[in-house]
Amino acid sequence: MLIARVVGELTATRKHPSHEGRKLLLVQPLNLDGTDRGVAVLAMDAVDAGIGDRVLVATDGFAAITAVGAPALSPIDMAVIGFIDQIDLLPGVS
Amino acid sequence: MLIARVVGELTATRKHPSHEGRKLLLVQPLNLDGTDRGVAVLAMDAVDAGIGDRVLVATDGFAAITAVGAPALSPIDMAVIGFIDQIDLLPGVS
Amino acid sequence: MLIARVVGELTATRKHPSHEGRKLLLVQPLNLDGTDRGVAVLAMDAVDAGIGDRVLVATDGFAAITAVGAPALSPIDMAVIGFIDQIDLLPGVS
Amino acid sequence: MLIARVVGELTATRKHPSHEGRKLLLVQPLNLDGTDRGVAVLAMDAVDAGIGDRVLVATDGFAAITAVGAPALSPIDMAVIGFIDQIDLLPGVS
Amino acid sequence: MLIARVVGELTATRKHPSHEGRKLLLVQPLNLDGTDRGVAVLAMDAVDAGIGDRVLVATDGFAAITAVGAPALSPIDMAVIGFIDQIDLLPGVS
Repeated sequence: MLIARVVGELTATRKHPSHEGRKLLLVQPLNLDGTDRGVAVLAMDAVDAGIGDRVLVATDGFAAITAVGAPALSPIDMAVIGFIDQIDLLPGVS
Repeated sequence: MLIARVVGELTATRKHPSHEGRKLLLVQPLNLDGTDRGVAVLAMDAVDAGIGDRVLVATDGFAAITAVGAPALSPIDMAVIGFIDQIDLLPGVS
Repeated sequence: MLIARVVGELTATRKHPSHEGRKLLLVQPLNLDGTDRGVAVLAMDAVDAGIGDRVLVATDGFAAITAVGAPALSPIDMAVIGFIDQIDLLPGVS
Repeated sequence: MLIARVVGELTATRKHPSHEGRKLLLVQPLNLDGTDRGVAVLAMDAVDAGIGDRVLVATDGFAAITAVGAPALSPIDMAVIGFIDQIDLLPGVS
Repeated sequence: MLIARVVGELTATRKHPSHEGRKLLLVQPLNLDGTDRGVAVLAMDAVDAGIGDRVLVATDGFAAITAVGAPALSPIDMAVIGFIDQIDLLPGVS
C-alpha cells in the first residue's frame, strides 16, 4: 500500500455502471517526509475521503475490487482504503 | 487507473474467441496537463470509446476482465472503463 | 496489452504438468514504429503463434491463465492472445 | 517476494472494517548486503512482526489477501509473511 | 515469465503455515546472453529446483499460487515453474 494525499476528484458522466455513486479520486503518492513520490494516479474511494486527506491506497485490482465491494464488482485497479493518522518510525528512518 | 487519450485502434483477425466484436484501442496515458506520460499501450474497450476520446483506463487483469464482463472471460490486462469530463484539483496541483 | 514480435521458443523438458504440449515463446515488445521497447520476455502461446509473428501479448497472471484455459490452470503470467494485422492511428501519432 | 526490514508502524483509526486488529507495517526492501533497495512501502502483517524485524514480504494483492486470510477479505496489496533467519548463497553471489 | 538462475536458498523458521516443507529460492533474472537482468528476488519452488539451476519463473501472485497448488493456498507472488533446457532464437536476436 502507499501513503498518498487526495489532490483532486474526477467527473466521468459515462462510465461502467458499477461506478455510479462512487468517487474517483486523484491521489498523489508521498514519501515519509511528505514530498511527492512519482506522479498522481486515480483511485476509487472506499472510505469517503476527500480532497486534502492523507490516505492509505491499495494498488492492485483484486485488492481494490475487494475494498469497494458489493453489490457489483467494480473494474478498478486502485482504491483509497483508510485515513492515516500517525506513523511510528524506527529511530534513524526518515 | 490512468487518464489516457485513445490514439489508435488495432485490427486482429485471428485472436482469442472472447475478443470477437470488441475493440482493441491504443491508448496514450496522460499527465494532468495533457502531456504524454510514458508510452502508448493497448486496452480493450468496455464503454464504446473511439479515437480522440479522453478516457479512464484500468490497468490490471482482474479489473479489466471484470470491466468487459460476460459472456466469456476475456484474457486482457487493461480496459477503457469511462470517459473523463472534468477534473477538480486542489489549489496548487497541476 | 503489448505489441510484440515472437523472437524465440524455449524448450523446458521438466516443467509444471499443465505446460505439456504448449509453446513457451520469447517475445520482444515493440514500439509503434517497430523498434524494440525494453527487453524480451517469455509468454505462453494461446493462438499457435510462431517465430517472426507480430502478436498481441497480455501481461497479467489472471489474464494469461484465462487465455490458455482448460483443462488445467497453467501457472503463467503472460500469454500471446492474438495476431496483429493493422493499427489505425490518430493523425500525428507515431 | 522481497527481503525487507520493518521500519515503522502506521496508525489509521478510520479504515476498511477488515483491517481492525491488524498491524500495518512500513517495510524497507533490502538488497542481499542489507542496503536499501528502493523506497519503503506499506504491508499488512500476517505473522506478528514488529519494528526492526527482517522479514519476507509478498507483493501482490491475491497473495497478500490469502496471507492475511479469514474471516473477511482484506483489500491489501502487500503482506509480511515470514521472518528471515538465514540466506545460503551460490559462491560469488553477494 | 523470466529466465533466471537459482543463486541462493532462504531459511525462514517462522512463516505462513502453507510454506512448511517448501523451498524459498533466491533467483537472479537473466538476459538471453546469460548476464544479470536487474536484481535477485525470492520465488517459491514448484519443481524441486536447486542452487545453480537455470529456471523459468512466473512473476504474478495468481500464477505463483496456482503453480504451488494444494492443499493450502500459499501467499506468494513468484514461483519457479520449470527448468530451461534450450532457447531457439530468430536469426539476429541475441
